[in-house]
Amino acid sequence: MKIAVDVMGGDFAPREILLGAQIFAESGAADLILVGRRSDIEAILPSLPQGCEIADTPEFVEMGEAPATALRKKRNTSIALAARLVKEGKAQGFLSAGSTGAQMAASLLEIGRIPGVERPPVAVVMPTVNNTGLVVLDVGANVDCKPHQLLQFAIMGAAYFERLYTSERARVGLLNVGSEPGKGNELAKATYVLLEKADLNFVGNVEPDHMFEGVCDVLVCDGFDGNILLKTSEGVSEAVNQALKRGLAQANLPPEVVQKIQNELRRFRVDAPEYSGGPLLGINGGSFVCHGKSKAPVIANALHLAARFVVSDVVGLIARRLSNAGPAAS
Amino acid sequence: MKIAVDVMGGDFAPREILLGAQIFAESGAADLILVGRRSDIEAILPSLPQGCEIADTPEFVEMGEAPATALRKKRNTSIALAARLVKEGKAQGFLSAGSTGAQMAASLLEIGRIPGVERPPVAVVMPTVNNTGLVVLDVGANVDCKPHQLLQFAIMGAAYFERLYTSERARVGLLNVGSEPGKGNELAKATYVLLEKADLNFVGNVEPDHMFEGVCDVLVCDGFDGNILLKTSEGVSEAVNQALKRGLAQANLPPEVVQKIQNELRRFRVDAPEYSGGPLLGINGGSFVCHGKSKAPVIANALHLAARFVVSDVVGLIARRLSNAGPAAS
Repeated sequence: MKIAVDVMGGDFAPREILLGAQIFAESGAADLILVGRRSDIEAILPSLPQGCEIADTPEFVEMGEAPATALRKKRNTSIALAARLVKEGKAQGFLSAGSTGAQMAASLLEIGRIPGVERPPVAVVMPTVNNTGLVVLDVGANVDCKPHQLLQFAIMGAAYFERLYTSERARVGLLNVGSEPGKGNELAKATYVLLEKADLNFVGNVEPDHMFEGVCDVLVCDGFDGNILLKTSEGVSEAVNQALKRGLAQANLPPEVVQKIQNELRRFRVDAPEYSGGPLLGINGGSFVCHGKSKAPVIANALHLAARFVVSDVVGLIARRLSNAGPAAS
Repeated sequence: MKIAVDVMGGDFAPREILLGAQIFAESGAADLILVGRRSDIEAILPSLPQGCEIADTPEFVEMGEAPATALRKKRNTSIALAARLVKEGKAQGFLSAGSTGAQMAASLLEIGRIPGVERPPVAVVMPTVNNTGLVVLDVGANVDCKPHQLLQFAIMGAAYFERLYTSERARVGLLNVGSEPGKGNELAKATYVLLEKADLNFVGNVEPDHMFEGVCDVLVCDGFDGNILLKTSEGVSEAVNQALKRGLAQANLPPEVVQKIQNELRRFRVDAPEYSGGPLLGINGGSFVCHGKSKAPVIANALHLAARFVVSDVVGLIARRLSNAGPAAS
């Protein structure tokens, strides 16, 4: 199995992307194709890690460049080339820490959708107090959605969770502002009706103050609300961690004690390595988004997730589930 | 000044409501009219606190009763009577820990809106790292909104913040998933244009991972997103605090050290007393919502906020600002 890595995308590209690829390569979990400017790559990795090769291209999506325009103007940007390698079967998945917009454009342009998929959502795993974790989708790719598109998200999210995290049927929840049926805005109310009828293990509305309690495995929402939820979690966990640092400093404790306390809290840093990457579901091949801020350990982690995603054939399962979902999902 | 208190509304009513009223009464900041069943009140407060009187009514909105139906069926529910006292000028504001739906229904039915107001939003103050605090609205009263209604929220939220928290013009931000203009869903994009043109100190889009940094004073959103934001914050801060408790327990530190650490974090418990109540803005009189879970200290805090709200005539300022806002806001 090979995974193509866009080494030019991300706030700390190419260095942190390449160092992350190096960490991953040492595990031997998959081979990597490093897609980007050869000179940059060889400057940072003078000797290529085991199982790594280079796909050289001088072009990439520049900072602040509109992704769609960039990909139209430049045929061989690193992200487009990485996606093309998947289309051509030379890689089974690709990963980038560039913008979600560029990821979406490159994935649609080069690989295309699984038949029946209208809007590919970004799915991320968030922590829960019972450690099972929770797949939230869409967290930002589609800011305006229709009920049947959220039903597609539910089907795709359930397939993803079941293949990667459980042998049982995923419990699907609908992000909402109240737990009772009939609660929420027009989109939530109409989506509830569809999810209830669908062949899903639907557990009803889930309010975000309960989502970390492990009440569902998959939380469905449009990309606007999902992104608000994700970024609110980041903001709160960051603010709390800052306050904790002050508190620990004032208490001046021995470092090992501070470490013990911070280990407990680490899981609830929503920006922890575990939770900083996710697949663009509904693309007809492995397409992985990483947070732009991602550093080497996060990249390495996301590559492991990408490898598991490819090996467990989530794409194939989504295709079968959607073709059986009937008219409600289309 | 008198504030009417619905002592029958809330998960811990009437006991915690009455004990909160008692704490507040000792401050002498305002007189209170305790609205509810006299027998219940006298059982918990055998001798009425200084400056408190009782408005006796046997009726109240029962657990799980649909607010609108209850208020239509029963003319003298405690919440409706509390609102009516404001309408009749016998009180200048009223407070309830019953449902937001009941608060809205009673406020509209008995007091009515400030001329020009379409949808009264619930505004809550959330913490920021720089301690200025931040008014977020709407946090749940209106789950489907139009751009001009969000403009009204902005005008009302700014008036509220300026009267209670600052001598300067409030910096108004729009809750969004990206900072650049043109980002977001249809509602956000259309609202941005209105806020930009309005006579406001508009600072642009604000992503929730930055909201706690004090980048704006008023954050505008529809009631669905605001409620998601609020409950996500509650969920994360609760999860983090649980993890912290485990960490502190394992580190077994002296109680005073634990206290020091937890004091730093207290401000970022979004369910802290400071942040559990807020006005229903746009009602033609003081109308205060408290979290249903509120206990005595929270109720006392919310009563102090209500007193400040009444004294500073936020209602009058909102009326003037809206009448000057022009057609865009109507």
